[in-house]
Amino acid sequence: MDTRRLESFSDGVFAVAITVLVFNLLTIGEHGAGFTTLVTDAWPQYFAYAIGFLTVGIMWLNHHTVISHVRQVDRATLVLNIFLLMFVVAVPFPTALVADQLKKGGAGAAVVTYGVVMILMGVAFASLWAYLSTHQEALGATSLVALSAAERFRSVLRFSGPLVGYVAGTLVGGFWSPIAGLIIYGLIGVYYLFEHLPSPPAGDPEPEAGRDGPITG
Amino acid sequence: MDTRRLESFSDGVFAVAITVLVFNLLTIGEHGAGFTTLVTDAWPQYFAYAIGFLTVGIMWLNHHTVISHVRQVDRATLVLNIFLLMFVVAVPFPTALVADQLKKGGAGAAVVTYGVVMILMGVAFASLWAYLSTHQEALGATSLVALSAAERFRSVLRFSGPLVGYVAGTLVGGFWSPIAGLIIYGLIGVYYLFEHLPSPPAGDPEPEAGRDGPITG
Amino acid sequence: MDTRRLESFSDGVFAVAITVLVFNLLTIGEHGAGFTTLVTDAWPQYFAYAIGFLTVGIMWLNHHTVISHVRQVDRATLVLNIFLLMFVVAVPFPTALVADQLKKGGAGAAVVTYGVVMILMGVAFASLWAYLSTHQEALGATSLVALSAAERFRSVLRFSGPLVGYVAGTLVGGFWSPIAGLIIYGLIGVYYLFEHLPSPPAGDPEPEAGRDGPITG
Amino acid sequence: MDTRRLESFSDGVFAVAITVLVFNLLTIGEHGAGFTTLVTDAWPQYFAYAIGFLTVGIMWLNHHTVISHVRQVDRATLVLNIFLLMFVVAVPFPTALVADQLKKGGAGAAVVTYGVVMILMGVAFASLWAYLSTHQEALGATSLVALSAAERFRSVLRFSGPLVGYVAGTLVGGFWSPIAGLIIYGLIGVYYLFEHLPSPPAGDPEPEAGRDGPITG
Repeated sequence: MDTRRLESFSDGVFAVAITVLVFNLLTIGEHGAGFTTLVTDAWPQYFAYAIGFLTVGIMWLNHHTVISHVRQVDRATLVLNIFLLMFVVAVPFPTALVADQLKKGGAGAAVVTYGVVMILMGVAFASLWAYLSTHQEALGATSLVALSAAERFRSVLRFSGPLVGYVAGTLVGGFWSPIAGLIIYGLIGVYYLFEHLPSPPAGDPEPEAGRDGPITG
Repeated sequence: MDTRRLESFSDGVFAVAITVLVFNLLTIGEHGAGFTTLVTDAWPQYFAYAIGFLTVGIMWLNHHTVISHVRQVDRATLVLNIFLLMFVVAVPFPTALVADQLKKGGAGAAVVTYGVVMILMGVAFASLWAYLSTHQEALGATSLVALSAAERFRSVLRFSGPLVGYVAGTLVGGFWSPIAGLIIYGLIGVYYLFEHLPSPPAGDPEPEAGRDGPITG
Repeated sequence: MDTRRLESFSDGVFAVAITVLVFNLLTIGEHGAGFTTLVTDAWPQYFAYAIGFLTVGIMWLNHHTVISHVRQVDRATLVLNIFLLMFVVAVPFPTALVADQLKKGGAGAAVVTYGVVMILMGVAFASLWAYLSTHQEALGATSLVALSAAERFRSVLRFSGPLVGYVAGTLVGGFWSPIAGLIIYGLIGVYYLFEHLPSPPAGDPEPEAGRDGPITG
Repeated sequence: MDTRRLESFSDGVFAVAITVLVFNLLTIGEHGAGFTTLVTDAWPQYFAYAIGFLTVGIMWLNHHTVISHVRQVDRATLVLNIFLLMFVVAVPFPTALVADQLKKGGAGAAVVTYGVVMILMGVAFASLWAYLSTHQEALGATSLVALSAAERFRSVLRFSGPLVGYVAGTLVGGFWSPIAGLIIYGLIGVYYLFEHLPSPPAGDPEPEAGRDGPITG
């Protein structure tokens, strides 16, 4: 199977998941629409919306990079991808939970829930990447074949290392301070704004296949 | 008509249907966000989310496999596909119903509703597959033309046989034990994690057309 | 501009609009999940879901056929397409309205609302088709250039004639009997299950471009 | 990276965001379905739906035009695009807010919120356009390279000038008259119905790549 429908389906899921975040904003107006409600009371909603949007957006970027390394996928890749998407789609749930609890105090359980979803998603991402890089020849990932064992290990470390940070943030948020846990999650988000995976082959794995993308030319 | 827009539309519908499942999670936070609510009370919601996600995900996989056998589609295929999607999109409804009833007891009617939706979807899937394999030459399904009658019959049996299981699960769930019905549904889900359709042609029905997919090369 | 992104965006909008219909089902469980609630009380919801799904699905089929006649689109086409989508996305609103009122009695206003949305959508569809067929040469619709004036007029009549039926159904539903209005809408739906537009060029307007679709080969 | 998955993801996000507007209509039926509720009381909802739909639709058109100038994108483009989408997806929130307040009076805060979202979106759009036109050679935007400095400056002015109008509308709406603010927003919407960006290259930046789009031929 080629990667086209995997990408098409995944893009759709990412697009819907990122848009579900707006339902958290839509409830703001129910409490009236004075300046107090819209600014003083609702800031955790706006904050959570921005964080959630960037989180899902960056996951989309990384998904894009991971998949563009391979030329075709097998059923195991597709099943791993469904597990990954399961946690991507869940992101609006802990995001709304944290936003609701930030004003009320006692956000510990919400911060832990957020951390658990991010850890599960990190594990799913790492599994997908591990599967693709160990089956690189069958899946046509020529760019990964060229990597040395040390480079490959470093790439795994740089891409999945922040999992340790999510575990730390979850523990800190649950047992000590929810705010401190959120700050740790925020720093991990900033880390992922930058590229931490080996660059995919420019345009396309095979030069002569470059003409297929409508604008790749 | 080629299969491109059929796939694009179907991928979109599958992607939205699978994401609708998160709305069932979003209501959890309304009852507070203590550890009790989030863990003890809400486990049927998480369970139903995971089952629903895998179910729709696997249906997408099988839809992918079914459609990749043909090179073009006619209006009858498109209408059959709309009937299939009608039941795919409905899946979040009985899933939420079962999750709600699992804690309250008396989940019989919910389990039956789930079974009925799955049976209707199974019938729609079998109809689509039957139509495609009986119109294989008009639709350019070269890989199916090569099958013998016995192989074709076995493929129908392996792909649509679990319909009998859904009927059994519905009867067991309605008249005897809802939990037993759910276990039967779960076993059918595991069965479908594996491939039960003839493999579609590698990449593309015609070797020289393989260059069209952006990464198939 | 080529038609690719128009189709991609439109497919996404159709896919989300058709899936929004399930939110009407999701509210059923709120009133409990006994056999009475799920079967006796909720039948108008199931009925409306099926009708709404087929309606949006058939509109997608016809949109597919309309757009596949042209090779490129201009800004006017894109703006007309946005107006058409505005009424496609609105369909779940009158559908839910009719379902809610069917049990309560007094569905007159709901049936009229449904009719008005369908009339506006019919006008938008007819405008798009009229624009495309009068700008056929600029948009590369070679298949339409070949039609005689009489054939073109007949195609408009067959495709947009049911608008008269929607006007009749709206008047009948508003002033006489809501059920009679719904039956008229249903008959129009059956009419549109069949093809009423000139067939688009097989696969692609230009034979040598046929290799671009991944499976058209 | 080529622009294909950027467009696919963005189209999905635009499609879902535009469809979220219908949820504002779905609540109308909760207050009954007599002629008074559906016509006299609900007109701000219909008005806001139409305005919101056209606004997001036109943003999609402009996004289409902006992206079709380049042949490939880098990580900075993708991150800027995520920021842009963040404000596109937020549009249903102030739209619903304005619709709710229009009948109740005191829509000042709602009109200001609408203006702030539109200003942020305008800034994101201007940033994306500025980035693409200053990195035109790296991104393969041959059509922009051909522009003189004066033409490029005029294009920025015509495309992003209305930002000043949104600032004015926000101030007028907040300090003087909400209705006057809405009229200013409406006029800006009409302005954007027309093309204000340099035309993208016909079909494709490179003539020989034109065969890739399925219908571009």
